[in-house]
Amino acid sequence: MSSSLRVLIIGGVACGPKTASRLRRLMPDADITMIERDQLVSYGACGLPYYVEGEFININALTHTQVGLPRTPEFFQKTKGFKTLTRTEALSIDRKNKTVRLKNLDTDEETDMAYDKLVIAAGGSAFRPPIPGLDLKNVWFMTHPEHARTLVDEIKDQGFKKAVMVGAGFIGMEITEALTNKGLDVTMVEMFDQVMPGVLDKDIAEYVQLHLDDNEVELALGERVTALNPDESGQKAVSVQTDKQTIDTDCVIIAVGTRPNDSLAREAGLSCMDKGGIIINDYCQTSDPDIYAGGDCAVNRYVSSIAGNPMYVPLGSTANKHGRVIADHIAGMRVPFEGIAGTGIVKCFEFNIGRTGMTEKMAKQMNLDYEVITWGGPDRPHYMKTARYMLIKMLASKRDRKLLGVQAAGMGDVAKRVDAAAAVIFFGGTLDQLAGIDLAYAPPYGPPLDPIAVCAHILSNKMDGISRSLSVEEAKKRMDTTDAVMLDVREPDENKLLTIKCDPDRHFHIPLGELRERIDELPKDKDILSYCKISLRGYEAQLILNQAGFDRVWFIEGGHEAWYYGLNYLGM
Amino acid sequence: MSSSLRVLIIGGVACGPKTASRLRRLMPDADITMIERDQLVSYGACGLPYYVEGEFININALTHTQVGLPRTPEFFQKTKGFKTLTRTEALSIDRKNKTVRLKNLDTDEETDMAYDKLVIAAGGSAFRPPIPGLDLKNVWFMTHPEHARTLVDEIKDQGFKKAVMVGAGFIGMEITEALTNKGLDVTMVEMFDQVMPGVLDKDIAEYVQLHLDDNEVELALGERVTALNPDESGQKAVSVQTDKQTIDTDCVIIAVGTRPNDSLAREAGLSCMDKGGIIINDYCQTSDPDIYAGGDCAVNRYVSSIAGNPMYVPLGSTANKHGRVIADHIAGMRVPFEGIAGTGIVKCFEFNIGRTGMTEKMAKQMNLDYEVITWGGPDRPHYMKTARYMLIKMLASKRDRKLLGVQAAGMGDVAKRVDAAAAVIFFGGTLDQLAGIDLAYAPPYGPPLDPIAVCAHILSNKMDGISRSLSVEEAKKRMDTTDAVMLDVREPDENKLLTIKCDPDRHFHIPLGELRERIDELPKDKDILSYCKISLRGYEAQLILNQAGFDRVWFIEGGHEAWYYGLNYLGM
Repeated sequence: MSSSLRVLIIGGVACGPKTASRLRRLMPDADITMIERDQLVSYGACGLPYYVEGEFININALTHTQVGLPRTPEFFQKTKGFKTLTRTEALSIDRKNKTVRLKNLDTDEETDMAYDKLVIAAGGSAFRPPIPGLDLKNVWFMTHPEHARTLVDEIKDQGFKKAVMVGAGFIGMEITEALTNKGLDVTMVEMFDQVMPGVLDKDIAEYVQLHLDDNEVELALGERVTALNPDESGQKAVSVQTDKQTIDTDCVIIAVGTRPNDSLAREAGLSCMDKGGIIINDYCQTSDPDIYAGGDCAVNRYVSSIAGNPMYVPLGSTANKHGRVIADHIAGMRVPFEGIAGTGIVKCFEFNIGRTGMTEKMAKQMNLDYEVITWGGPDRPHYMKTARYMLIKMLASKRDRKLLGVQAAGMGDVAKRVDAAAAVIFFGGTLDQLAGIDLAYAPPYGPPLDPIAVCAHILSNKMDGISRSLSVEEAKKRMDTTDAVMLDVREPDENKLLTIKCDPDRHFHIPLGELRERIDELPKDKDILSYCKISLRGYEAQLILNQAGFDRVWFIEGGHEAWYYGLNYLGM
Repeated sequence: MSSSLRVLIIGGVACGPKTASRLRRLMPDADITMIERDQLVSYGACGLPYYVEGEFININALTHTQVGLPRTPEFFQKTKGFKTLTRTEALSIDRKNKTVRLKNLDTDEETDMAYDKLVIAAGGSAFRPPIPGLDLKNVWFMTHPEHARTLVDEIKDQGFKKAVMVGAGFIGMEITEALTNKGLDVTMVEMFDQVMPGVLDKDIAEYVQLHLDDNEVELALGERVTALNPDESGQKAVSVQTDKQTIDTDCVIIAVGTRPNDSLAREAGLSCMDKGGIIINDYCQTSDPDIYAGGDCAVNRYVSSIAGNPMYVPLGSTANKHGRVIADHIAGMRVPFEGIAGTGIVKCFEFNIGRTGMTEKMAKQMNLDYEVITWGGPDRPHYMKTARYMLIKMLASKRDRKLLGVQAAGMGDVAKRVDAAAAVIFFGGTLDQLAGIDLAYAPPYGPPLDPIAVCAHILSNKMDGISRSLSVEEAKKRMDTTDAVMLDVREPDENKLLTIKCDPDRHFHIPLGELRERIDELPKDKDILSYCKISLRGYEAQLILNQAGFDRVWFIEGGHEAWYYGLNYLGM
């Protein structure tokens, strides 16, 4: 075949333009066409909540390049050298003849376009829950610049005072911050009994919920929306009906998940997950090697250190990586996509909330033999004014000590720790390796032993049987269901501030320095739960007691601060 | 032997207390003694510049625990369970009889103490350059809380207006910030012709120097201090004499490096580096397996992905890791110290400056076959107000594509990127792996493709021959020494702002979108250096020109912004 390679790309938002741009650089002669159903191509959808918040005032920032050029078909033709057809929908794929049926949405004209390589980058769509009222005027999904623009305009024009955010995932958290900071009273409605149910374990989510509460967000958790109730005119929603209450509102934003746009692939007989998402190999090839898929329409395997089936985690970062992998493979370069680690991060008010790898919930579902700890403390030396508290929860495999997952939340620098952990998970590293990395240290950035290394040490100690500890949740349960006692080993002055609330008969206070002398005050026939501010001394108390023949001692992970979610640190 | 294991630890600042505390937790019955020459034990020396700056006002923060307990011998005895002897010096080691000769510095009494295991954690000492005047009253080294306390007091009491900082390493940078922010006029004197000579390549250092200049720090680079000139009374220094000038000052701070306190080990016949530093294995054992060494008196091997001899890099983070490795090994647990990556970070005014792995200078000295790029751009999506510019320089091995080193500087979030790179270097990862890690992405933290992944891509492209580029330094040289021309492919409006200064006859301006049509305006017989704002379009111009038969085209790495060090971004 003497003619040049014909590459057709379906979808023009993230993976599509990345594939086309990279491929043009690698293959000057390829015949590259990108089609997009919408009028807009290549926009930064992740920035929509920040437009709503007012972080920037011209929404063109999301549709234009850094220097202000609109990313139009003409722009792509002139600067990137490939053809773009907007308002063009792919109706079906004829794999045998290698053509795609296209429809011009302006003229309704249909044509067939031939391809040698086809790339499906059709993205995802906001899930529309099966409830009445979604089409009312003041109901927004938040997936397109037009949605953000109209929401901002109407907040101003109509003077909205109240909003209901349905869904407490990443977008729900970001929009809640945005609307609250614009002065609206926001109620978050979430079907599950915690925020960020797909991202965080419940204990970490509870810490995040405290912060939402501090910011006067109303939480309606464990509530299912059953309808959006219209006003008399039937034009706009006046309240959100859940299975528990009716919440009056001026507007409703819905972000209850994304569904992969896989119908085109599915109808063409390409392998897809039952739950949705096109299945791809390490080079983003579908079950037809001449058809690639990438971005929000595909599922991803985990990096090799994490077990489990392919997962649907739509993210702009992954979409961009896919684009490069696809272009490289079409051009004959084999650089694999090595999988995702389920990494995600979100800012919500003053909190940074992140995760990489598995949650405890996931590890349980997979019946993995894991160990887990929760740590809480400042992210920098305590003498730095910039020090901020954060909680870290860390899981590792008992079998091979490999790091399985990290969750972190708080005002501290979460991103730095999540990224280091994501790298360790990528390489299948162990706890000992995580603790050994030569991470950047200086007081403005962290303490000599970074919190992520401290967590690895604490988890190692627990796994090695050197320490015995309970999470706050487990400790609360132990206190509620047994005759266990608590041992506060903080100094008298600290102790005056705040003690964990419990029956005084079941609470001992012996500063660590006096513990050896006063050890006889403690009962040997009861479980003893030791704690201090963050539980380093609680851990030492456990060892001192063990050494004195007390067998039933556990320290409370994260200590008093974790029990009360670091409230003393919030104002550091 | 029925008696308990006798462990003697020489040195009580960082590695010593860490070793003793961990060992007590692992071995309840060990007989642990820690000795320290000074009166103070276990202080946070890294915090001294922040005390000087006024970040905290009670210097006890450095000598007390987080909850305000002084870390005294009594504290260690009571809460940690080991003995501490202060004002006690180790004079000599008798390896045959396994004793150490100790001297009580208050009574001058000498005794021998027996050990089964000996730990040398003797730290480092500030290097005292061989010049007259070091003992004058207003001359400070910055290694002990007393130094910081007296400096702060005298600045206030004497009304110091001017300071000379001798040495532009980590401490020099921190103290310069501290004194400037206290209102003093600071002159930095550095023997080498750049700041941070042991840490950064000169091109990155020059960017840092611009920032020092913006903060009105006087730089005296490439100047050797020959004397501190005393006043008439001979009590205090009135000026610093260099080989080029006399600099009047009210006080002098000297931080020209740390030397390992290895004489005790050396005199006992333990293997040391000729240049200084006790040689240790992966378990921190010296050449005598019953003697361990750790912290600032020891040298470290590099992690296995980096070639080279053991290096002396004294850092609090490493000292703490050593302490744990030593305690574990004494207790029979074998968790190795897997080496350092030469990671370092420092904050200086609004700049974050970090490095991990090798610099280009080091790679050259080792004759490695490497490729290198410099990138400059915002650390977050351009639509975020919090986006800040930074430069990243990245090296990788041509042989196996392994990441060799990263340097980063600017107002952007450098720590996050340095940590991710440090992890990759720890695991011996390649550029492709670095780009593949599932790093945390959301607009408040970074763009979809993190800058560190973007750098890995650009360096891959260069290594694979897809792109051809020159660093700003190389481009400047090419313009100076050949008849090369420049090609600005930015839009007219951008171009109006600022163009790289050069002879108009050797400067072409063709916006990228017009390049294909106007290609004949360019000379085929000259080197063409293309650029735009950050050089993504510069790179595309190079490819378009290559495809049109122009062979002599390179894009300028980091583009216009890197040429002028991102000055347009400083106010983002």
